[in-house]
Amino acid sequence: MNIRIILKSLGIVLFIEGLCMFPSLLVSVIFRDGDALSFVISILVTVAAGFLLYKIPGNNSKFYARDGFAVVALSWIAISLFGALPYIISRTIPSFIDAFFETVSGFTTTGSSILNDIESLPRGILFWRSFTNWMGGMGILVLTLAVLPSIGAGTLHIMRAESPGPSTEKLVPKLGQTAKILYTIYVVMTCIQVILLMIAGMPLFDSLVHAFASAGTGGFSIRNSSIGAYGNVYIEIIITVFTVLFGVNFGLYYRLIKGDAKGLFRDEELRFYFGTIIASIALITIDLYRHGLFTLGQSLRHSSFQVGTIITTTGFSSTDFNLWPSFSKIILVILMVFGACAGSTGGGIKCMRILMLLKTARREIAGVIHPRAVHTVKAGNKVIDEDTVKGTLIYFFIYSAFFAVSVLLVSLNGKDLVTSATSVIAALSNIGPGLEAVGPMGNFSDFSILSKLILCLDMIAGRLEFLPVLILFSPMAWKKGSM
Amino acid sequence: MNIRIILKSLGIVLFIEGLCMFPSLLVSVIFRDGDALSFVISILVTVAAGFLLYKIPGNNSKFYARDGFAVVALSWIAISLFGALPYIISRTIPSFIDAFFETVSGFTTTGSSILNDIESLPRGILFWRSFTNWMGGMGILVLTLAVLPSIGAGTLHIMRAESPGPSTEKLVPKLGQTAKILYTIYVVMTCIQVILLMIAGMPLFDSLVHAFASAGTGGFSIRNSSIGAYGNVYIEIIITVFTVLFGVNFGLYYRLIKGDAKGLFRDEELRFYFGTIIASIALITIDLYRHGLFTLGQSLRHSSFQVGTIITTTGFSSTDFNLWPSFSKIILVILMVFGACAGSTGGGIKCMRILMLLKTARREIAGVIHPRAVHTVKAGNKVIDEDTVKGTLIYFFIYSAFFAVSVLLVSLNGKDLVTSATSVIAALSNIGPGLEAVGPMGNFSDFSILSKLILCLDMIAGRLEFLPVLILFSPMAWKKGSM
Repeated sequence: MNIRIILKSLGIVLFIEGLCMFPSLLVSVIFRDGDALSFVISILVTVAAGFLLYKIPGNNSKFYARDGFAVVALSWIAISLFGALPYIISRTIPSFIDAFFETVSGFTTTGSSILNDIESLPRGILFWRSFTNWMGGMGILVLTLAVLPSIGAGTLHIMRAESPGPSTEKLVPKLGQTAKILYTIYVVMTCIQVILLMIAGMPLFDSLVHAFASAGTGGFSIRNSSIGAYGNVYIEIIITVFTVLFGVNFGLYYRLIKGDAKGLFRDEELRFYFGTIIASIALITIDLYRHGLFTLGQSLRHSSFQVGTIITTTGFSSTDFNLWPSFSKIILVILMVFGACAGSTGGGIKCMRILMLLKTARREIAGVIHPRAVHTVKAGNKVIDEDTVKGTLIYFFIYSAFFAVSVLLVSLNGKDLVTSATSVIAALSNIGPGLEAVGPMGNFSDFSILSKLILCLDMIAGRLEFLPVLILFSPMAWKKGSM
Repeated sequence: MNIRIILKSLGIVLFIEGLCMFPSLLVSVIFRDGDALSFVISILVTVAAGFLLYKIPGNNSKFYARDGFAVVALSWIAISLFGALPYIISRTIPSFIDAFFETVSGFTTTGSSILNDIESLPRGILFWRSFTNWMGGMGILVLTLAVLPSIGAGTLHIMRAESPGPSTEKLVPKLGQTAKILYTIYVVMTCIQVILLMIAGMPLFDSLVHAFASAGTGGFSIRNSSIGAYGNVYIEIIITVFTVLFGVNFGLYYRLIKGDAKGLFRDEELRFYFGTIIASIALITIDLYRHGLFTLGQSLRHSSFQVGTIITTTGFSSTDFNLWPSFSKIILVILMVFGACAGSTGGGIKCMRILMLLKTARREIAGVIHPRAVHTVKAGNKVIDEDTVKGTLIYFFIYSAFFAVSVLLVSLNGKDLVTSATSVIAALSNIGPGLEAVGPMGNFSDFSILSKLILCLDMIAGRLEFLPVLILFSPMAWKKGSM
């Protein structure tokens, strides 16, 4: 590992993070909520730490893929540690582990909370909390790439390690340019959502924070009963539509801007994504109505909202879906595992990978039936290379292995199996709520410190798609010969 | 598909099945339980059906892998249909679907039951029920291969399709000979267990049926509270040791007979299998003792018994483990998914595959850290070829996909999530009991017909490791061009 360059890169990321705390300071000042000093201290500490790390002399040579993965994993841990400062200093979340959990949950766009009463929090802190959702959605290293021309060699390795999906698409030859395009689309879409939410009757502040949480598919709300608290169908529709849109591969929006609308409809992942959404909404609507929980209209309303917010791994709620029948709940859990599209702000395994896994299974059958034919896995018209196919299969196993080990450790809390299992899925897929004790009306406050740490690791591992975290903790990577 | 040869093979299998009903008829006559006529009719019908199918004229040419898979899948469905006759004719299980479920559960060595009161059943029927466990363990087609010199071309395809594990080992060049060796080991070990159980104080009949259920890792008991009913620690020890031994790759026993004891200890899967067993027993013992459920000795006793019977996918119970703490229950569920060794009578994913999956994940990490080195997956000293690695990864995904779809459909019963999920795992891994409503004290009697059919499909698919069933139901395989 090239430790100097890793620390130098960390410095830049922390510096940027410090700057990103300014809007929250501003909110705190505007609303005079008394936390301005907490933000000033947090900014100074974070920027200073970043500056000191950046000043470490180092050479830019020899930056390998493993260094890129380590930079990304360490950056996400570091920003979560420093991002917890406002909570701790303002004493809104005095416990270090809780503040760390809330920050990891924010940056990884999970949206799980240890807070029992969100509404009692001051405005500046609420803003920061939602802003972490927004920053984490597109990625803080992508942000770094967007604002700085280059942070040394190996930016591709960094981008690859942070971007979700089986393969990283370069929209334009220059990576910094790609990052800028992505962030521009992201900002514009967020602004449109804010305006629409305000038109629907949401106050400006609420519109801002909920747009942040939708854009990052994070799901932090400022109301204890999430979006359900507004009881406004227009707000629900806007949030459903926008979370679903933020769950689409951003590369497609770029193509759309470039006038390639056809490419959009031909995209197999997008068709699979919308197909899954429509089928899930239909099945849940029927199931809810059949059980007499709601009228047909209400069933459609709640099922659309929950399907949209769960498949995109946002995790808002309009009602307590923990009380829904088993069939509906299992659909939601399957959607939690699926997740949104590759190259979106959503988490989970990603529709692209699910599609590839299904096609690979189909090919296995075809291979027995026609043993002499050559069988490939295709996406659209393109043949997917075998390394990507194998990588996807391994990804699926690693997701499952993380799940099994984490559930086992979290079960030491003594909670029921459904709580243990869905809290881990919620963390790995960056959703937020699970079922039972961690359902939409519950939270993670009474989990043990061990469980909170495991879930933090799961959130970061899930957000970064495992490899960066596995490499960071692999003794192999730190052996003398690999430095 | 070569339909004539498929039907011809089916005929032979049914003929053998009919003959396999004789011992049960004998038991029925000896105990004068009044069901002798039911068995006579069942035997006549089954043998006649087999004979008629065998008489279909056909050529032995062109027998491909797909035909082998189809023969195996169809054979398992056919033997379950005809194997249900004694239950139906004797009116011990009057419902067709229930009788079919019980037979599938028997042959696939699952051991799930729809019976509320097992002890009220007559002896002949109880014997037949346990005998299906024994036949299914080693495989009825392997039995066919053992008793007949050849059932036409393509016996390798058949053996491959029915034998569990990622690759089929030929012990000796001739397959029929291999099948004979396997069955000889099987019979000898079963006899030893019967004798030991009798010495421990079990009556002859009970010893026979429980040895059948142990050998096949099936788990059908003739007592409502399973092995716990005997309250005899020696019986529990014998059953634990034997189920664990029946979960070992039979190829290793052959090597042992040939004097290769070293090979036994060098076998990586075996080490992994025993390592997992010992670690699980230790963790569950501590967990049970920590929660004050039992004394330390009792904790060790029950944890050893349950770990042995669950990892081998037998499914006996000595106590109601559904009442155990979450941590212990999750270990048991993980063991259900793991299963025993490849080439044993046990079900599940198999230790060999879990080991390969873990090594493949490790290689993925090594590949990033040392991108220029060549990375292979090894078992012992042998390099595993990439097709087997990929096949294992795909197997894992197919297992998961079957799980997800089945849980969704079974959840239409309206049962809780844990019941729905563990009933499917119990079926796919051929265990028997799950948790909650399908725990050791529960049964499957009040599941809907749809659920029972889904679970039957899961049991057969799990026992045959998916491909035969997938190929049988694949429209691709039945297209004109493939015939």
